[in-house]
Amino acid sequence: MRIVTISREFGSGGRELGKRLADELNFDYYDREIIDTIAHNTGTDPNYVFTVLENHGWKNIPLTFRQSVKSSLTVQYAQTELLIEQKRVIEEIAKHGNDCVIVGRNADVLLQDYCPFNIFVCADVQAKIRRCMERATQDENLTPKVLKRKMQNIDKQRKQIRDILTGSKWGEPHNYHVTINTTDWEIKQLTPAVTAIVNRWFGRKQ
Amino acid sequence: MRIVTISREFGSGGRELGKRLADELNFDYYDREIIDTIAHNTGTDPNYVFTVLENHGWKNIPLTFRQSVKSSLTVQYAQTELLIEQKRVIEEIAKHGNDCVIVGRNADVLLQDYCPFNIFVCADVQAKIRRCMERATQDENLTPKVLKRKMQNIDKQRKQIRDILTGSKWGEPHNYHVTINTTDWEIKQLTPAVTAIVNRWFGRKQ
Repeated sequence: MRIVTISREFGSGGRELGKRLADELNFDYYDREIIDTIAHNTGTDPNYVFTVLENHGWKNIPLTFRQSVKSSLTVQYAQTELLIEQKRVIEEIAKHGNDCVIVGRNADVLLQDYCPFNIFVCADVQAKIRRCMERATQDENLTPKVLKRKMQNIDKQRKQIRDILTGSKWGEPHNYHVTINTTDWEIKQLTPAVTAIVNRWFGRKQ
Repeated sequence: MRIVTISREFGSGGRELGKRLADELNFDYYDREIIDTIAHNTGTDPNYVFTVLENHGWKNIPLTFRQSVKSSLTVQYAQTELLIEQKRVIEEIAKHGNDCVIVGRNADVLLQDYCPFNIFVCADVQAKIRRCMERATQDENLTPKVLKRKMQNIDKQRKQIRDILTGSKWGEPHNYHVTINTTDWEIKQLTPAVTAIVNRWFGRKQ
């Protein structure tokens, strides 16, 4: 079984790269599917799981989701529970034994016994803002300033959660096989080269 | 003209990757040749230039080279002069207009107007020690402990010189197009994949 993990800065195009890579390699692809499974297993709303785990926005969780929540401490506890369920779901995916690409969620560390090929994707702030602005729907009403703040918050939380849970530093190049700066790339143009490196990795003599 | 620059941690296999990449791409290759040219232009001994610029070992420069040196300050001054000559030599290489791979020497920053493709090569400490031990000649009498110290000193100096001269942080993934961790690779096996990414870069629509 071959597993590719993609960790990424918010807005760097890591998700798109993961999706395209899975298509080119003919691997299964896991991203939001993990959220749905966690929601299903825990009997919670997928949007709530997404907000807590992906947007790290539990401080701004809409009231509809907070009905039974007494304090932010309770939400933090809920986050921990969801992270544990996420770990379980990711381990289940690996046990299925299918070749796959998994985006985010510290899968590189969680699945290290399976020797995945680990990619980190980064980009300059301006490039990330440009990429996000291009993809935003009009009704999101995002400004570069708002996006920059959102970006910084999400990456800060990703870093904190990873550092605390795994002891392995997020974004530190020694913790990944390859780190790609997408600043001047179209992800579509980059994908075949990344496919080449992944194929080379799994085809190498050990 | 296409320029590929390779910056690297000591012992990571960056030089070998540069050489192999130049062979595969049929590009000119510049590494020690730069030292010889600096020595020729400044009328100094190539071993002296190498020691001052590459090994950053001016504190241990053999007495034969220190005949006219009054203090370590003088040597530091000499180092600055050699760095300026090195900058000139690298700019000359670019002006020749041939496709080339340049290893080290902050060529990525010095030649940024030529839009080079910039690679950083790193590896885990144990992998770097192993690589160096394999390549050391018996009479070098190197131990892993000595190597580790040498490695740390050289990388520290590379980092300091780069940070001071260019204002661009050495080894920070946002400053390179791709960062490769060679820990579990044979450089020979890795090269075709890096060639693919370089070709993709220079072949992309802008």
